[in-house]
Amino acid sequence: MLSKSQVSFVHSLYIDKFRKELGLFIAEGEKTISELLESSFCIEQMYATELFLRKHMQAVTRNNIPFSEISPEELNRLSLLKTPNQAIAVVKMPKPDVRPAQPEKELLLMLDRIQDPGNLGTMMRTADWFGIGQIICSTDCVDQYNPKVIQASMGSFLRVRVHYDDLAWFLSGPGSACKVFGTFTEGSNMYEETLPDSAVILIGNESAGISANLQKFIHKKISIPFYNRNKPGSRPESLNAAISAALVCAEFRRQNS
Amino acid sequence: MLSKSQVSFVHSLYIDKFRKELGLFIAEGEKTISELLESSFCIEQMYATELFLRKHMQAVTRNNIPFSEISPEELNRLSLLKTPNQAIAVVKMPKPDVRPAQPEKELLLMLDRIQDPGNLGTMMRTADWFGIGQIICSTDCVDQYNPKVIQASMGSFLRVRVHYDDLAWFLSGPGSACKVFGTFTEGSNMYEETLPDSAVILIGNESAGISANLQKFIHKKISIPFYNRNKPGSRPESLNAAISAALVCAEFRRQNS
Repeated sequence: MLSKSQVSFVHSLYIDKFRKELGLFIAEGEKTISELLESSFCIEQMYATELFLRKHMQAVTRNNIPFSEISPEELNRLSLLKTPNQAIAVVKMPKPDVRPAQPEKELLLMLDRIQDPGNLGTMMRTADWFGIGQIICSTDCVDQYNPKVIQASMGSFLRVRVHYDDLAWFLSGPGSACKVFGTFTEGSNMYEETLPDSAVILIGNESAGISANLQKFIHKKISIPFYNRNKPGSRPESLNAAISAALVCAEFRRQNS
Repeated sequence: MLSKSQVSFVHSLYIDKFRKELGLFIAEGEKTISELLESSFCIEQMYATELFLRKHMQAVTRNNIPFSEISPEELNRLSLLKTPNQAIAVVKMPKPDVRPAQPEKELLLMLDRIQDPGNLGTMMRTADWFGIGQIICSTDCVDQYNPKVIQASMGSFLRVRVHYDDLAWFLSGPGSACKVFGTFTEGSNMYEETLPDSAVILIGNESAGISANLQKFIHKKISIPFYNRNKPGSRPESLNAAISAALVCAEFRRQNS
């Protein structure tokens, strides 16, 4: 049986402030939690349905995971998702990530004021696909442990490290040897540029783009070419930020594989 | 002053069933509605704040738009968005789209059981960017007029037509001359294929992929190469569906521009 205090404790972790105070976050869903069980992350408490436990009991026992079996109805009360899926875990945040030691020797994704949790989670999943192990976020990006970020990352939060920093400070200090590529409407067609295999790919805020104070660090303004159907009238202003990030990451990898 | 019945009428349009019965949908936000005002779509009723009206009164008057001025607090009551933005409009659905006359002569996006409204909206925005004027959805895809689809499309619903059909029927009949490309983990690296400028790009359901009954229509299975960091342990299973769609659309356009 779930107690009222267990439910309100889990619900409190949907709120930024409480997550930060407690150093805990929530992960949900069968696939994510089955991957969590095999990871180095520390699960404080797991709530799982019989269906989940039947399939994953070996891993739960082997890793000494504290768990409670709950009914699907109790899972519905515990989760704020529309369609909760088999299990929910309270997980310890790992130590804050250190910045990369030699950022100029890697392909890095850098995010300036990304606000949408779905976008950040999707970018973590995309980075994971393209072998980008670290994302550097401005301190005012959405929290990497927001449940919607974790959800959208589809387990990639286990592999991609997210480091929060003052981007202008980073680019003038530890990252000053990095080649920075930013996307701009007026940038040059990225398919016509020779892209290096180590670089910082800088993606700006969903509506305001890249901050003015970061522009001086940009070595090359690039753009994703718009395909003109030659129809009169309105046209799209931009692509979604996570889509832009994916297209640019893919092109860096395509040119250097 | 907003009446209770106005509020509940607008709220009813957040529900699929009522939208379909009434042939009306909701569009929100300053940018989307300012584009709507210049489009051929018919606005039945607009609720807008003073801020919006001050900026767009000319277009509102010129197009004879029925409107009510409301306060930001009333807008909050009317909208189910977390941060409503200046205006909300009740819009007539245009006539259902006819399927393209010569589908084999276009680049088309075809979606099999896409469930997430954010994904469909983002794919409409991406299609718009890449000059793809039509999306063909299976009848069990999320509704194109779902408010979250409209929101994520960022105005692209005004330009990209979405047609719902039985995909197997379409591909064995009117679309039988189309070259169909589907994404599969085991497909060949799309960057090593020669892609035609007219084709159907088939994207499968977020978790289950492409339906078994559609596989026989696929001319070429392609994949987006995964970049292996040679690290041991788990790896991402897939990319987000909207990200995959964007990467494939971009590659078709890159090869044929």
